[in-house]
Amino acid sequence: MGTLKQMELFKEIPLKLENGETIGPIVVGFETYGELSLAKDNCILLEHALTGTAHAAKHFEEDVAGWWDDFIGAGKTIDPADYFIVCTNVFGGCSGTTGPSSVDAQTGEEYRLHFPGFTIRDIIKVQKALLDALGVVHVVSVIGGSMGGMQATQWAIDYPEITGSVINLASPLAASPEAIGYNLIMRMAILNDPDFNGGDYVGQPEGGLATARMVGMMTYRTSELFSKRFERFTVADSSPGAFSKEHFQVESYLQYQGDSFVERFDANSYLYLTKAIDLFDVTVNGRDEKPLFTGIQIPYLLVGVTSDQLFRIHDLRRDYELLKEWDVPVTYYEVDSDYGHDAFLVEVEKFHPLISTFLTQHSRIELKK
Amino acid sequence: MGTLKQMELFKEIPLKLENGETIGPIVVGFETYGELSLAKDNCILLEHALTGTAHAAKHFEEDVAGWWDDFIGAGKTIDPADYFIVCTNVFGGCSGTTGPSSVDAQTGEEYRLHFPGFTIRDIIKVQKALLDALGVVHVVSVIGGSMGGMQATQWAIDYPEITGSVINLASPLAASPEAIGYNLIMRMAILNDPDFNGGDYVGQPEGGLATARMVGMMTYRTSELFSKRFERFTVADSSPGAFSKEHFQVESYLQYQGDSFVERFDANSYLYLTKAIDLFDVTVNGRDEKPLFTGIQIPYLLVGVTSDQLFRIHDLRRDYELLKEWDVPVTYYEVDSDYGHDAFLVEVEKFHPLISTFLTQHSRIELKK
Repeated sequence: MGTLKQMELFKEIPLKLENGETIGPIVVGFETYGELSLAKDNCILLEHALTGTAHAAKHFEEDVAGWWDDFIGAGKTIDPADYFIVCTNVFGGCSGTTGPSSVDAQTGEEYRLHFPGFTIRDIIKVQKALLDALGVVHVVSVIGGSMGGMQATQWAIDYPEITGSVINLASPLAASPEAIGYNLIMRMAILNDPDFNGGDYVGQPEGGLATARMVGMMTYRTSELFSKRFERFTVADSSPGAFSKEHFQVESYLQYQGDSFVERFDANSYLYLTKAIDLFDVTVNGRDEKPLFTGIQIPYLLVGVTSDQLFRIHDLRRDYELLKEWDVPVTYYEVDSDYGHDAFLVEVEKFHPLISTFLTQHSRIELKK
Repeated sequence: MGTLKQMELFKEIPLKLENGETIGPIVVGFETYGELSLAKDNCILLEHALTGTAHAAKHFEEDVAGWWDDFIGAGKTIDPADYFIVCTNVFGGCSGTTGPSSVDAQTGEEYRLHFPGFTIRDIIKVQKALLDALGVVHVVSVIGGSMGGMQATQWAIDYPEITGSVINLASPLAASPEAIGYNLIMRMAILNDPDFNGGDYVGQPEGGLATARMVGMMTYRTSELFSKRFERFTVADSSPGAFSKEHFQVESYLQYQGDSFVERFDANSYLYLTKAIDLFDVTVNGRDEKPLFTGIQIPYLLVGVTSDQLFRIHDLRRDYELLKEWDVPVTYYEVDSDYGHDAFLVEVEKFHPLISTFLTQHSRIELKK
């Protein structure tokens, strides 16, 4: 995609990670929409989910589809005429920002599993450095869903002085044991692949990575959606006999999702990023008894999906109660959708009015429209 | 277990399977409790779930625990003083009944993936042959949960003349696309294991089979239970660094479940049995427009678990409506439990009164107690 910009950061002083290790330089891949205002205060930072990229939306009509085209564009909820919209590829990912598949300048070889362990906090440190380099002095809102929502939440805690508001869709304040379980299983599928080779695979550990993606898809959608879409339909001329064959249409769908994921996502990145999700927990603050949110007065929009099979609605309800308890100015909505966790990517129209209203209420910049 | 009995059946005439293939002889492993009455009509047939065995309950105090000890025994819901209780190891399994790990008399070698494909219908054909050989003329009730409930349901359709009633716990009339998806993923994990070797593994394809079991455990329990039991507790002295390590307690739990499963369950059997579940569907009858349940007047108890993450309550509600539509004398209950799908094995006390009442109402034999 020709619209990806890249910037090299942490050249002189490497990034110190939460686990104490250091890494640098770091190339950050990102895309932008609209222009930074003279006051440099009209930035909206978009945070992509686990397997997303910086390409949040099309830049022109014939451009490749983004993951939030319905949200971003002229006349839409987030209009580049008003905002300087920035979306980065996450640190540790595989789409243009330094990650396990990048070459380590020190060794001349890809990091692979020599890449340091990192957290959501480290991911946003890299984003903050990018925004500093771009001259941004105020972020109107940090917006993300799923792992993107975790990043948005971490912004409120780590950079409250420049964060105007946070919009967190379908993600909790801490990964649940169930989500940790699924992440473990997905990593097991990759680690056990015959081609994994301790992370030094040639190509990809295809079967394992595809299986991981299939597990993911089960949690991103819902039982109801699978029933409506696939029923028990079979693939024409298929037989149930061979175990590796696709007999039911739902099997064919899942295998297609798995196989196409192998083409676009690095297995080692998947290991690191799922671990970062596991470790995410802003409800506690180690030995300090004060919650991490103490004193944070940043407007926070939390939207849960009632049918979410990955980040459960009962966890988001608990988080809403916690945020209120901590005096965070929180607004909470629930959305019903057959799409479950993926609703924020698929049924965007259900989130549009919630986000639009919230932004209007809490954006301190004057919009042109 | 010294209490397992075995009988060789289909010696002269092999079993003709639903797919047209034949197999014989077939050794059937089973356990019994109580005595067959003079009228030979006091049999209760218990159907185990996917990874269960014929060892439903202890035969004596010091015996190994069974999977339904709370149900079966003197003074319990199913009392051997009243009933001749039979539980078989399913055909195609790996605990004493002919399956992929059995030796094919024709070749002198284990069947492995040369074992014929089979269905729930084939499984109960083998059970029927066993009951015939034991002289049973009437089955008071066929009782099972999960895959066991599918077998029980199939009994009503295939052998209505000798089936007194059916008790189906936590299983639908057809595997849902979601359940098929999870089964596919579990098979993928096994098939992709470096030691699988086309089914001709030495030992077991350990990593893949363990991963499959871990996926299963996620669906057998609930998000709520994992949250209550494990929270985000970590294993003492563990670090989050290495991907294969157990850092969170939920990871340790799942890996323990996976590893211990490898010790007791044959990977090839798992492939075949999950496929048999996928193919289960008694809501349709091929080209014939009459549903399979047409004319079947056997009392049918269906119990769903509201929190079931494998066989969803909305599917069981639909099945209840279908059974009523087909004029089956159906009784339906819903049970709430943090244990989800596994509730019928764990919170047995919630099922006890439902089953007890149903059996009393619909058992035609006079009980001694």
